[in-house]
Amino acid sequence: MTATVLPEAPATIRFLQTPSSEAWLEQALANFEIVLLDHSHCERKAAGVALSLISRYPSDAKLVRTLTAIAREELEHFEQVNSLLEAQGIPLQALPAPPYAAGLHKAIRRTEPDRLLDQLLVAALIEARSHERLGLLAAHLPDAAIAGFYRALMASEARHFGAYWLLAVERFPRSQVDKRLQELATLESQLLSNLHPQPRVHS
Amino acid sequence: MTATVLPEAPATIRFLQTPSSEAWLEQALANFEIVLLDHSHCERKAAGVALSLISRYPSDAKLVRTLTAIAREELEHFEQVNSLLEAQGIPLQALPAPPYAAGLHKAIRRTEPDRLLDQLLVAALIEARSHERLGLLAAHLPDAAIAGFYRALMASEARHFGAYWLLAVERFPRSQVDKRLQELATLESQLLSNLHPQPRVHS
Ligand SMILES: [Fe+2]
Ligand SMILES: [Fe+2]
Ligand SMILES: [Fe+2]
Ligand SMILES: [Fe+2]
Repeated sequence: MTATVLPEAPATIRFLQTPSSEAWLEQALANFEIVLLDHSHCERKAAGVALSLISRYPSDAKLVRTLTAIAREELEHFEQVNSLLEAQGIPLQALPAPPYAAGLHKAIRRTEPDRLLDQLLVAALIEARSHERLGLLAAHLPDAAIAGFYRALMASEARHFGAYWLLAVERFPRSQVDKRLQELATLESQLLSNLHPQPRVHS
Repeated sequence: MTATVLPEAPATIRFLQTPSSEAWLEQALANFEIVLLDHSHCERKAAGVALSLISRYPSDAKLVRTLTAIAREELEHFEQVNSLLEAQGIPLQALPAPPYAAGLHKAIRRTEPDRLLDQLLVAALIEARSHERLGLLAAHLPDAAIAGFYRALMASEARHFGAYWLLAVERFPRSQVDKRLQELATLESQLLSNLHPQPRVHS
């Protein structure tokens, strides 16, 4: 897929090294029920990531405040996606995760303060990719109501990207953030370069 | 402390084997800043408990729906307590947990379906105890605004107790729930029978 799918790519997407492939979009549209179920798990996990960062850095008041707001929004998205699943008659169920998030988490360095920087940037990149892919679904899903729902969600994910990125630049020198973000963005695109056989938000 | 402190004990408190001691209330009132900080951690952990149950039982739609609503409320409480801490000039910070929750978690059996029943009842008992203790604080705190805030929160914790208990009785025979709740309630009261030297919501 070329940039023509989203001609006016918003700022968040500029941080992604490679746009999502046509193959991913085709896979997702052809298996939308599974992607929607996976999306529910993504929202729950996004809330969990924010909550676990809060518990790891309990004395960082700005981080706690920002990530509490994000966790609350992710839980609201989780609820909304689950309502949509229910309306579509798709039962909630477990779904094996694609290797994407685990691959990114492996790159998180183990010692502070690198660990904090990497956690913030990995979360930022996942949000940026979610933003891009929900945008593609919003542009291509045939059901106008679901497409509209995805358009609303993608705006949140862009704000979440910005919030994680801002937490990083407030706590680390800008040059260090830029360099590490580029390294992690390269990995992020590599992890998506071979389409995962199971349709997922991050396959 | 006798039952006279809360003469018309609401239903949730009947499940607690022993009311909180005067010694706890004195310790809490004399160290309210620490208890308020600990309360912030309790709200975050309550959200985490709900979220982890959701991820363990992803195909139980009713459980997922109920606990998503609880997790959202706990995060709202977390935000409110943190605002109160900020207004009081108390910095957010880590605080070692008392042995209470770990002692209850040790009693959770490892195999399903016992594990689910125990998790629901342990969560219910923690909510019931929180309800009781927030009620004591609401009744005895000298600051009317903070006391009012605690009165609002204690109503939520009572609903949370009820929600966990209902999830249990919907999934397990009533006699099994009653028997296990009594066992765990006995343990819960034992864990609080010697006042923990550090002032906490559950010391
Ligand atoms: Fe989201
Ligand atoms: Fe997000
Ligand atoms: Fe709460
Ligand atoms: Fe609660």
